[in-house]
Amino acid sequence: MPIAADAEIEITAFEWVPDFAKGYVRDIRPRWACEELGLSYRERLISAVSRPDWYYRDQPWGQVPHLADGGVSVFESGATLVHLGERGGQGSALLPASGQARASVLSWTFAAFNSVEPFLFEWVNVSLFAAKEEWAKLRRPSLLTELGKRLDRLQAALEDREWLAGAFSIADIAMVTTLRSIDDSDLIEARPALAAYYARGLARPGFQAALADQIAAFGEPPSRQQTGA
Amino acid sequence: MPIAADAEIEITAFEWVPDFAKGYVRDIRPRWACEELGLSYRERLISAVSRPDWYYRDQPWGQVPHLADGGVSVFESGATLVHLGERGGQGSALLPASGQARASVLSWTFAAFNSVEPFLFEWVNVSLFAAKEEWAKLRRPSLLTELGKRLDRLQAALEDREWLAGAFSIADIAMVTTLRSIDDSDLIEARPALAAYYARGLARPGFQAALADQIAAFGEPPSRQQTGA
Repeated sequence: MPIAADAEIEITAFEWVPDFAKGYVRDIRPRWACEELGLSYRERLISAVSRPDWYYRDQPWGQVPHLADGGVSVFESGATLVHLGERGGQGSALLPASGQARASVLSWTFAAFNSVEPFLFEWVNVSLFAAKEEWAKLRRPSLLTELGKRLDRLQAALEDREWLAGAFSIADIAMVTTLRSIDDSDLIEARPALAAYYARGLARPGFQAALADQIAAFGEPPSRQQTGA
Repeated sequence: MPIAADAEIEITAFEWVPDFAKGYVRDIRPRWACEELGLSYRERLISAVSRPDWYYRDQPWGQVPHLADGGVSVFESGATLVHLGERGGQGSALLPASGQARASVLSWTFAAFNSVEPFLFEWVNVSLFAAKEEWAKLRRPSLLTELGKRLDRLQAALEDREWLAGAFSIADIAMVTTLRSIDDSDLIEARPALAAYYARGLARPGFQAALADQIAAFGEPPSRQQTGA
Protein backbone atom coordinates (compact mmCIF):
# COMPACT_ATOMS: atom_id res chain seq x y z
CA MET A 1 0.00 0.00 0.00
CA PRO A 2 1.73 3.18 -1.14
CA ILE A 3 -0.57 5.56 0.75
CA ALA A 4 1.28 6.86 3.82
CA ALA A 5 0.45 9.93 5.89
CA ASP A 6 4.10 11.00 6.08
CA ALA A 7 4.95 10.49 2.40
CA GLU A 8 6.86 13.23 0.60
CA ILE A 9 4.57 13.03 -2.43
CA GLU A 10 1.05 14.44 -2.05
CA ILE A 11 -1.68 13.80 -4.62
CA THR A 12 -4.80 15.99 -4.60
CA ALA A 13 -8.05 14.14 -5.36
CA PHE A 14 -11.76 14.72 -4.80
CA GLU A 15 -13.45 13.80 -1.51
CA TRP A 16 -16.61 12.76 -3.35
CA VAL A 17 -17.85 12.43 -6.96
CA PRO A 18 -21.10 11.07 -8.46
CA ASP A 19 -21.18 7.29 -8.97
CA PHE A 20 -20.55 7.42 -12.74
CA ALA A 21 -17.22 9.17 -12.13
CA LYS A 22 -15.94 6.92 -9.35
CA GLY A 23 -12.73 5.25 -10.48
CA TYR A 24 -12.48 7.53 -13.52
CA VAL A 25 -11.10 10.75 -11.99
CA ARG A 26 -7.71 11.64 -13.39
CA ASP A 27 -5.76 11.37 -10.14
CA ILE A 28 -5.77 7.67 -11.06
CA ARG A 29 -2.82 8.49 -13.33
CA PRO A 30 -0.24 9.62 -10.75
CA ARG A 31 -1.64 7.04 -8.28
CA TRP A 32 -0.92 4.30 -10.86
CA ALA A 33 2.57 5.65 -11.56
CA CYS A 34 3.35 5.65 -7.83
CA GLU A 35 2.20 2.03 -7.60
CA GLU A 36 4.43 0.97 -10.50
CA LEU A 37 7.41 2.82 -9.04
CA GLY A 38 6.86 1.71 -5.44
CA LEU A 39 6.59 5.33 -4.30
CA SER A 40 4.54 6.24 -1.23
CA TYR A 41 2.13 9.17 -1.41
CA ARG A 42 -0.38 10.90 0.81
CA GLU A 43 -3.78 12.18 -0.29
CA ARG A 44 -5.15 15.72 -0.07
CA LEU A 45 -8.89 15.61 -0.67
CA ILE A 46 -10.86 18.66 -1.83
CA SER A 47 -14.49 19.24 -2.70
CA ALA A 48 -15.46 18.68 -6.33
CA VAL A 49 -18.77 20.42 -5.68
CA SER A 50 -17.40 23.72 -4.40
CA ARG A 51 -13.71 23.99 -5.27
CA PRO A 52 -11.87 26.08 -2.69
CA ASP A 53 -10.66 29.44 -4.02
CA TRP A 54 -7.08 28.81 -2.87
CA TYR A 55 -6.91 25.67 -5.00
CA TYR A 56 -6.81 27.69 -8.23
CA ARG A 57 -3.34 28.86 -7.23
CA ASP A 58 -2.18 25.24 -7.35
CA GLN A 59 -4.25 24.22 -10.38
CA PRO A 60 -5.42 26.97 -12.75
CA TRP A 61 -8.57 25.10 -13.90
CA GLY A 62 -9.55 23.86 -10.43
CA GLN A 63 -9.24 20.27 -11.61
CA VAL A 64 -7.46 17.25 -10.14
CA PRO A 65 -4.85 15.91 -9.88
CA HIS A 66 -2.32 18.25 -8.39
CA LEU A 67 0.93 16.74 -7.17
CA ALA A 68 3.31 18.15 -4.57
CA ASP A 69 6.71 16.55 -4.10
CA GLY A 70 8.69 18.13 -1.31
CA GLY A 71 8.62 21.78 -2.30
CA VAL A 72 7.76 21.17 -5.96
CA SER A 73 4.22 21.75 -7.27
CA VAL A 74 2.99 20.00 -10.45
CA PHE A 75 -0.38 20.19 -12.21
CA GLU A 76 -1.88 18.48 -15.29
CA SER A 77 -1.95 14.69 -15.08
CA GLY A 78 0.53 14.48 -17.99
CA ALA A 79 3.07 16.59 -16.13
CA THR A 80 2.62 14.50 -12.97
CA LEU A 81 3.44 11.38 -15.02
CA VAL A 82 6.61 12.93 -16.46
CA HIS A 83 7.62 14.21 -13.01
CA LEU A 84 7.15 10.78 -11.41
CA GLY A 85 8.82 9.02 -14.35
CA GLU A 86 11.88 11.24 -13.97
CA ARG A 87 11.90 10.92 -10.18
CA GLY A 88 12.24 7.17 -10.34
CA GLY A 89 11.64 4.77 -7.50
CA GLN A 90 12.03 1.17 -6.49
CA GLY A 91 10.09 -0.12 -9.50
CA SER A 92 11.01 -0.36 -13.14
CA ALA A 93 11.71 2.83 -15.10
CA LEU A 94 8.55 4.36 -16.56
CA LEU A 95 10.48 7.04 -18.49
CA PRO A 96 13.95 6.17 -19.80
CA ALA A 97 16.60 8.84 -19.34
CA SER A 98 17.77 9.27 -22.92
CA GLY A 99 17.87 8.15 -26.53
CA GLN A 100 15.16 6.56 -28.66
CA ALA A 101 13.61 4.89 -25.61
CA ARG A 102 12.92 8.27 -24.02
CA ALA A 103 11.78 9.86 -27.30
CA SER A 104 9.30 7.03 -27.93
CA VAL A 105 7.80 7.30 -24.44
CA LEU A 106 7.44 11.09 -24.73
CA SER A 107 5.96 10.79 -28.24
CA TRP A 108 3.31 8.29 -27.18
CA THR A 109 2.58 10.18 -23.97
CA PHE A 110 1.76 13.35 -25.92
CA ALA A 111 -0.13 11.18 -28.43
CA ALA A 112 -2.45 10.05 -25.63
CA PHE A 113 -2.98 13.57 -24.30
CA ASN A 114 -3.23 15.52 -27.56
CA SER A 115 -4.17 13.07 -30.35
CA VAL A 116 -6.49 10.56 -28.64
CA GLU A 117 -7.96 12.13 -25.49
CA PRO A 118 -9.39 15.24 -27.25
CA PHE A 119 -11.64 12.93 -29.31
CA LEU A 120 -12.73 11.26 -26.09
CA PHE A 121 -13.44 14.56 -24.32
CA GLU A 122 -15.87 15.32 -27.14
CA TRP A 123 -17.22 11.76 -27.11
CA VAL A 124 -17.98 11.85 -23.37
CA ASN A 125 -19.73 15.18 -23.86
CA VAL A 126 -21.79 13.94 -26.81
CA SER A 127 -22.69 10.57 -25.30
CA LEU A 128 -23.05 11.51 -21.61
CA PHE A 129 -23.11 15.13 -20.42
CA ALA A 130 -24.89 16.62 -23.44
CA ALA A 131 -26.52 13.41 -24.68
CA LYS A 132 -30.02 14.91 -24.68
CA GLU A 133 -29.02 18.04 -26.64
CA GLU A 134 -30.04 18.17 -30.27
CA TRP A 135 -26.53 19.13 -31.40
CA ALA A 136 -25.07 16.11 -29.64
CA LYS A 137 -27.50 13.73 -31.34
CA LEU A 138 -26.64 15.25 -34.72
CA ARG A 139 -22.89 15.29 -34.05
CA ARG A 140 -22.65 11.71 -32.83
CA PRO A 141 -22.38 9.88 -36.21
CA SER A 142 -19.57 12.01 -37.64
CA LEU A 143 -17.66 11.99 -34.37
CA LEU A 144 -17.96 8.22 -34.21
CA THR A 145 -16.43 8.02 -37.70
CA GLU A 146 -13.54 10.34 -36.79
CA LEU A 147 -12.89 8.56 -33.49
CA GLY A 148 -13.02 5.18 -35.21
CA LYS A 149 -10.38 6.24 -37.75
CA ARG A 150 -8.08 7.40 -34.97
CA LEU A 151 -8.57 4.13 -33.07
CA ASP A 152 -7.85 2.18 -36.28
CA ARG A 153 -4.44 3.87 -36.44
CA LEU A 154 -3.80 3.12 -32.79
CA GLN A 155 -4.80 -0.49 -33.36
CA ALA A 156 -2.38 -0.67 -36.34
CA ALA A 157 0.46 0.63 -34.16
CA LEU A 158 -0.33 -1.95 -31.47
CA GLU A 159 -0.42 -4.98 -33.75
CA ASP A 160 3.25 -5.81 -33.30
CA ARG A 161 3.92 -4.61 -29.77
CA GLU A 162 3.01 -5.32 -26.16
CA TRP A 163 3.28 -1.71 -24.92
CA LEU A 164 3.35 1.54 -26.87
CA ALA A 165 7.03 2.35 -26.45
CA GLY A 166 8.94 -0.84 -25.65
CA ALA A 167 8.67 -1.57 -21.94
CA PHE A 168 5.60 -0.49 -19.96
CA SER A 169 5.85 3.28 -19.44
CA ILE A 170 4.01 6.47 -18.52
CA ALA A 171 2.72 6.46 -22.12
CA ASP A 172 0.71 3.32 -21.32
CA ILE A 173 -0.65 4.81 -18.09
CA ALA A 174 -1.76 7.79 -20.17
CA MET A 175 -3.26 5.79 -23.04
CA VAL A 176 -4.99 3.05 -21.02
CA THR A 177 -6.63 5.59 -18.70
CA THR A 178 -7.64 7.66 -21.74
CA LEU A 179 -9.33 4.62 -23.30
CA ARG A 180 -11.41 4.08 -20.16
CA SER A 181 -13.75 6.83 -21.45
CA ILE A 182 -15.01 4.31 -24.02
CA ASP A 183 -14.88 1.13 -21.98
CA ASP A 184 -18.68 0.92 -22.06
CA SER A 185 -18.81 0.96 -25.88
CA ASP A 186 -17.77 -1.63 -28.48
CA LEU A 187 -15.15 0.75 -29.90
CA ILE A 188 -12.35 -1.11 -28.13
CA GLU A 189 -13.73 -4.64 -28.44
CA ALA A 190 -14.11 -4.23 -32.21
CA ARG A 191 -10.32 -3.85 -32.53
CA PRO A 192 -8.55 -7.00 -31.28
CA ALA A 193 -4.99 -5.65 -30.86
CA LEU A 194 -6.35 -2.58 -29.08
CA ALA A 195 -8.62 -4.70 -26.89
CA ALA A 196 -5.75 -6.99 -25.92
CA TYR A 197 -3.52 -4.00 -25.09
CA TYR A 198 -6.27 -2.39 -23.04
CA ALA A 199 -6.86 -5.63 -21.12
CA ARG A 200 -3.12 -5.99 -20.42
CA GLY A 201 -3.08 -2.50 -18.98
CA LEU A 202 -6.12 -2.97 -16.75
CA ALA A 203 -4.76 -6.29 -15.48
CA ARG A 204 -1.64 -4.73 -13.99
CA PRO A 205 -1.64 -4.87 -10.19
CA GLY A 206 -0.58 -1.21 -10.13
CA PHE A 207 -3.73 -0.14 -11.95
CA GLN A 208 -5.95 -2.30 -9.75
CA ALA A 209 -4.42 -0.86 -6.59
CA ALA A 210 -4.73 2.73 -7.86
CA LEU A 211 -8.36 2.13 -8.78
CA ALA A 212 -9.16 0.66 -5.38
CA ASP A 213 -7.40 3.50 -3.58
CA GLN A 214 -9.21 6.21 -5.54
CA ILE A 215 -12.56 4.60 -4.78
CA ALA A 216 -11.68 4.03 -1.11
CA ALA A 217 -11.02 7.76 -0.65
CA PHE A 218 -14.56 8.82 -1.56
CA GLY A 219 -16.72 9.73 1.41
CA GLU A 220 -20.40 10.48 1.77
CA PRO A 221 -22.08 12.83 -0.72
CA PRO A 222 -22.10 16.45 0.41
CA SER A 223 -25.29 17.60 2.10
CA ARG A 224 -27.20 20.54 0.63
CA GLN A 225 -26.22 22.56 3.66
CA GLN A 226 -22.49 21.97 3.12
CA THR A 227 -22.50 22.92 -0.54
CA GLY A 228 -24.88 25.83 -0.19
CA ALA A 229 -26.99 24.37 -3.02
CA MET B 1 18.75 31.25 -40.64
CA PRO B 2 18.66 27.88 -38.92
CA ILE B 3 17.70 25.89 -42.03
CA ALA B 4 20.75 24.01 -43.27
CA ALA B 5 20.86 21.04 -45.61
CA ASP B 6 23.46 19.21 -43.51
CA ALA B 7 21.82 19.82 -40.10
CA GLU B 8 21.50 16.90 -37.71
CA ILE B 9 17.91 17.80 -36.87
CA GLU B 10 15.27 17.10 -39.52
CA ILE B 11 11.72 18.47 -39.29
CA THR B 12 9.00 16.99 -41.48
CA ALA B 13 6.49 19.49 -42.85
CA PHE B 14 4.01 19.66 -45.72
CA GLU B 15 5.07 20.64 -49.24
CA TRP B 16 1.76 22.46 -49.80
CA VAL B 17 -1.42 23.27 -47.84
CA PRO B 18 -4.50 25.39 -48.69
CA ASP B 19 -4.12 29.13 -48.05
CA PHE B 20 -6.12 29.16 -44.77
CA ALA B 21 -3.62 26.72 -43.23
CA LYS B 22 -0.43 28.46 -44.36
CA GLY B 23 1.55 29.51 -41.30
CA TYR B 24 -0.69 27.46 -38.99
CA VAL B 25 0.66 23.94 -39.53
CA ARG B 26 2.06 22.48 -36.35
CA ASP B 27 5.66 22.09 -37.53
CA ILE B 28 5.81 25.78 -36.55
CA ARG B 29 6.34 24.55 -32.98
CA PRO B 30 9.69 22.73 -33.38
CA ARG B 31 10.78 25.36 -35.95
CA TRP B 32 10.20 28.07 -33.33
CA ALA B 33 12.05 26.09 -30.64
CA CYS B 34 15.03 25.65 -32.99
CA GLU B 35 15.07 29.41 -33.62
CA GLU B 36 15.05 30.20 -29.89
CA LEU B 37 17.81 27.68 -29.22
CA GLY B 38 19.94 28.60 -32.24
CA LEU B 39 19.76 25.03 -33.55
CA SER B 40 20.03 24.34 -37.27
CA TYR B 41 17.56 21.99 -38.91
CA ARG B 42 16.78 20.64 -42.34
CA GLU B 43 13.30 20.17 -43.81
CA ARG B 44 11.71 16.99 -45.11
CA LEU B 45 8.59 17.88 -47.08
CA ILE B 46 5.78 15.40 -47.68
CA SER B 47 2.43 15.64 -49.42
CA ALA B 48 -0.52 16.66 -47.23
CA VAL B 49 -2.89 15.59 -50.00
CA SER B 50 -1.72 12.00 -50.33
CA ARG B 51 0.37 11.05 -47.32
CA PRO B 52 2.96 8.44 -48.25
CA ASP B 53 2.32 5.00 -46.72
CA TRP B 54 5.83 4.80 -45.25
CA TYR B 55 5.22 7.98 -43.25
CA TYR B 56 2.80 6.25 -40.89
CA ARG B 57 5.77 4.30 -39.52
CA ASP B 58 7.27 7.63 -38.40
CA GLN B 59 3.99 9.28 -37.35
CA PRO B 60 1.06 6.99 -36.50
CA TRP B 61 -1.62 9.53 -37.52
CA GLY B 62 0.13 10.70 -40.72
CA GLN B 63 0.35 14.24 -39.33
CA VAL B 64 3.21 16.70 -39.07
CA PRO B 65 5.57 17.46 -37.50
CA HIS B 66 7.93 14.54 -37.16
CA LEU B 67 11.42 15.26 -35.89
CA ALA B 68 14.55 13.21 -36.43
CA ASP B 69 17.69 14.04 -34.48
CA GLY B 70 20.63 11.88 -35.44
CA GLY B 71 19.20 8.40 -35.00
CA VAL B 72 16.33 9.45 -32.74
CA SER B 73 12.76 9.70 -34.07
CA VAL B 74 10.16 11.90 -32.30
CA PHE B 75 6.51 12.55 -33.16
CA GLU B 76 3.75 14.75 -31.66
CA SER B 77 4.62 18.45 -31.57
CA GLY B 78 4.60 18.37 -27.75
CA ALA B 79 7.25 15.65 -27.68
CA THR B 80 9.37 17.55 -30.22
CA LEU B 81 9.29 20.58 -27.88
CA VAL B 82 10.38 18.53 -24.86
CA HIS B 83 13.09 16.82 -26.94
CA LEU B 84 14.48 20.13 -28.19
CA GLY B 85 14.18 21.74 -24.76
CA GLU B 86 16.23 18.92 -23.24
CA ARG B 87 18.76 18.93 -26.08
CA GLY B 88 19.65 22.55 -25.46
CA GLY B 89 21.54 24.78 -27.82
CA GLN B 90 23.22 28.16 -28.06
CA GLY B 91 20.11 30.04 -26.96
CA SER B 92 18.46 30.37 -23.58
CA ALA B 93 17.08 27.28 -21.88
CA LEU B 94 13.50 26.50 -22.89
CA LEU B 95 13.12 23.64 -20.39
CA PRO B 96 15.02 23.89 -17.08
CA ALA B 97 16.72 20.70 -15.93
CA SER B 98 15.17 20.31 -12.47
CA GLY B 99 13.15 21.66 -9.58
CA GLN B 100 10.11 23.93 -9.60
CA ALA B 101 11.28 25.65 -12.77
CA ARG B 102 11.12 22.36 -14.70
CA ALA B 103 7.84 21.30 -13.05
CA SER B 104 6.17 24.61 -13.96
CA VAL B 105 7.25 24.38 -17.60
CA LEU B 106 6.04 20.78 -17.90
CA SER B 107 2.74 21.63 -16.17
CA TRP B 108 1.98 24.55 -18.49
CA THR B 109 3.13 22.59 -21.54
CA PHE B 110 0.62 19.82 -20.82
CA ALA B 111 -1.95 22.52 -19.98
CA ALA B 112 -1.62 23.88 -23.51
CA PHE B 113 -1.87 20.45 -25.13
CA ASN B 114 -4.55 18.84 -22.96
CA SER B 115 -6.54 21.64 -21.25
CA VAL B 116 -6.64 24.42 -23.87
CA GLU B 117 -6.00 22.96 -27.33
CA PRO B 118 -8.82 20.34 -27.14
CA PHE B 119 -11.35 23.21 -26.85
CA LEU B 120 -9.74 24.82 -29.89
CA PHE B 121 -9.80 21.61 -31.93
CA GLU B 122 -13.55 21.58 -31.41
CA TRP B 123 -13.80 25.34 -32.04
CA VAL B 124 -11.97 25.11 -35.38
CA ASN B 125 -14.25 22.26 -36.38
CA VAL B 126 -17.42 24.12 -35.37
CA SER B 127 -16.41 27.47 -36.86
CA LEU B 128 -14.51 26.35 -39.97
CA PHE B 129 -14.52 22.74 -41.18
CA ALA B 130 -18.08 21.87 -40.14
CA ALA B 131 -19.44 25.42 -40.00
CA LYS B 132 -22.32 24.67 -42.36
CA GLU B 133 -23.48 21.57 -40.47
CA GLU B 134 -26.61 21.93 -38.39
CA TRP B 135 -24.94 20.36 -35.34
CA ALA B 136 -22.10 22.88 -35.52
CA LYS B 137 -24.51 25.83 -35.59
CA LEU B 138 -26.36 24.42 -32.57
CA ARG B 139 -23.16 23.56 -30.68
CA ARG B 140 -21.47 26.93 -31.19
CA PRO B 141 -23.07 28.91 -28.30
CA SER B 142 -22.37 26.35 -25.55
CA LEU B 143 -18.84 25.74 -26.82
CA LEU B 144 -18.20 29.48 -26.84
CA THR B 145 -19.27 29.62 -23.18
CA GLU B 146 -17.03 26.69 -22.20
CA LEU B 147 -14.07 28.05 -24.16
CA GLY B 148 -14.59 31.51 -22.66
CA LYS B 149 -14.49 30.12 -19.12
CA ARG B 150 -11.23 28.32 -19.85
CA LEU B 151 -9.71 31.47 -21.36
CA ASP B 152 -10.86 33.46 -18.29
CA ARG B 153 -8.80 31.12 -16.11
CA LEU B 154 -5.81 31.45 -18.43
CA GLN B 155 -6.18 35.24 -18.35
CA ALA B 156 -6.27 35.14 -14.52
CA ALA B 157 -3.05 33.12 -14.44
CA LEU B 158 -1.37 35.60 -16.80
CA GLU B 159 -2.30 38.75 -14.90
CA ASP B 160 0.87 38.76 -12.82
CA ARG B 161 3.40 37.19 -15.15
CA GLU B 162 5.19 37.79 -18.42
CA TRP B 163 5.45 34.15 -19.48
CA LEU B 164 3.60 31.09 -18.19
CA ALA B 165 6.40 29.53 -16.19
CA GLY B 166 8.97 32.21 -15.32
CA ALA B 167 11.32 32.68 -18.27
CA PHE B 168 10.11 32.10 -21.83
CA SER B 169 9.87 28.32 -22.36
CA ILE B 170 8.45 25.51 -24.49
CA ALA B 171 5.18 26.07 -22.57
CA ASP B 172 4.85 29.49 -24.24
CA ILE B 173 5.63 28.06 -27.68
CA ALA B 174 2.87 25.52 -27.05
CA MET B 175 0.32 28.01 -25.68
CA VAL B 176 0.90 30.87 -28.13
CA THR B 177 0.67 28.55 -31.14
CA THR B 178 -2.45 26.97 -29.63
CA LEU B 179 -4.09 30.39 -29.31
CA ARG B 180 -3.48 31.12 -33.00
CA SER B 181 -6.59 29.00 -33.73
CA ILE B 182 -8.67 31.90 -32.39
CA ASP B 183 -6.61 34.84 -33.64
CA ASP B 184 -9.43 35.83 -36.00
CA SER B 185 -11.99 36.10 -33.18
CA ASP B 186 -12.36 38.60 -30.34
CA LEU B 187 -11.83 35.86 -27.75
CA ILE B 188 -8.25 36.97 -27.16
CA GLU B 189 -8.75 40.72 -27.54
CA ALA B 190 -11.56 40.70 -24.95
CA ARG B 191 -9.04 39.58 -22.30
CA PRO B 192 -6.27 42.19 -21.87
CA ALA B 193 -3.67 40.11 -19.99
CA LEU B 194 -4.16 37.26 -22.45
CA ALA B 195 -3.97 39.62 -25.42
CA ALA B 196 -0.76 41.20 -24.13
CA TYR B 197 0.79 37.77 -23.54
CA TYR B 198 -0.24 36.60 -27.00
CA ALA B 199 1.23 39.74 -28.60
CA ARG B 200 4.50 39.27 -26.68
CA GLY B 201 4.75 35.74 -28.04
CA LEU B 202 4.05 36.65 -31.65
CA ALA B 203 6.54 39.53 -31.48
CA ARG B 204 9.48 37.26 -30.72
CA PRO B 205 11.97 37.10 -33.61
CA GLY B 206 12.05 33.31 -33.24
CA PHE B 207 8.33 33.06 -33.98
CA GLN B 208 8.55 35.45 -36.91
CA ALA B 209 11.43 33.48 -38.44
CA ALA B 210 9.66 30.15 -37.94
CA LEU B 211 6.49 31.53 -39.54
CA ALA B 212 8.39 32.88 -42.54
CA ASP B 213 10.28 29.61 -42.99
CA GLN B 214 7.14 27.49 -42.85
CA ILE B 215 5.48 29.68 -45.48
CA ALA B 216 8.62 29.79 -47.66
CA ALA B 217 8.65 26.00 -47.86
CA PHE B 218 5.25 25.73 -49.53
CA GLY B 219 5.40 25.09 -53.26
CA GLU B 220 2.76 25.04 -55.95
CA PRO B 221 -0.56 23.32 -55.33
CA PRO B 222 -0.57 19.71 -56.47
CA SER B 223 -2.05 19.10 -59.91
CA ARG B 224 -4.97 16.70 -60.26
CA GLN B 225 -2.68 14.32 -62.10
CA GLN B 226 -0.17 14.20 -59.21
CA THR B 227 -2.74 13.53 -56.52
CA GLY B 228 -4.84 11.14 -58.55
CA ALA B 229 -7.92 13.23 -57.72
